[in-house]
Amino acid sequence: MVRLNEVRSGELAVDLPARADAEVCPRQGRADGPTCRIEVFAPWDKGLDSIAEFARLEVLYWLHESRRDLALQAPRSDGNGRGVFSLRTPVRPNPIGTSIVELVKVEGPVLLVRGLDCLDGTPLIDLKPDRTLFVPLAPAQAGDVQVGDPVGDA
Amino acid sequence: MVRLNEVRSGELAVDLPARADAEVCPRQGRADGPTCRIEVFAPWDKGLDSIAEFARLEVLYWLHESRRDLALQAPRSDGNGRGVFSLRTPVRPNPIGTSIVELVKVEGPVLLVRGLDCLDGTPLIDLKPDRTLFVPLAPAQAGDVQVGDPVGDA
Repeated sequence: MVRLNEVRSGELAVDLPARADAEVCPRQGRADGPTCRIEVFAPWDKGLDSIAEFARLEVLYWLHESRRDLALQAPRSDGNGRGVFSLRTPVRPNPIGTSIVELVKVEGPVLLVRGLDCLDGTPLIDLKPDRTLFVPLAPAQAGDVQVGDPVGDA
Repeated sequence: MVRLNEVRSGELAVDLPARADAEVCPRQGRADGPTCRIEVFAPWDKGLDSIAEFARLEVLYWLHESRRDLALQAPRSDGNGRGVFSLRTPVRPNPIGTSIVELVKVEGPVLLVRGLDCLDGTPLIDLKPDRTLFVPLAPAQAGDVQVGDPVGDA
């Protein structure tokens, strides 16, 4: 387990609710698309602290209405199946969508964002700062800059 | 349900195994870091068809050793807690990691990639083409270019 028992000064551990995930209520997937609401339910609203520092967020959500068994798919309906992992279709073995959104506004437990692409009522899985904006805060550790080739023949 | 019963010409539906996820065996998170192996188990290896078209992939993986209850975290151990959603820490309510990796080589059900950041044996959740490289194949649909502001006051 990563950090099994440690709670550092300034940290907050919460009792996990029966339902651990929050919900998300958005629609389109363009940066100039409509503003969408992401609602984070207690106790995870506390996790939104400091999020306003980031102009863009990565959003993960559960595509709850998606079929999961199509290994090959034919988006053009032309009989030419392609592997699901070469597509960004919502129909996938683990139907998780990811979007990079512009953070427009934080209103308590509600985020207003642009750039989402999912159905109203889609369950929210996670929010992270856009990887291109985030600088790790923890001290450097062994391996942070490791290069080399353990696999060998690539 | 998205696409509940339809199987189009050229598509392949598989019987879902008891364990639906594959596994991943990588280490660091830099594009110049070590080559890592991603192994996709049957039947989902069929979903790798056409993946070699993409120079970069988005990888989702389950951070299986991570604690999940810390809403505020203090990465610098200085007593200044920050919301988990303003961090890219593996310790999060739904511990899913995402990386953008360079696809070095495809060897059957094994991908060799650079840019991962997770432990050896980490369960793989999903692979997608990098969003900046992928162009949707399906015909345009109503709403694809929708703009406007259903939320209102943003």
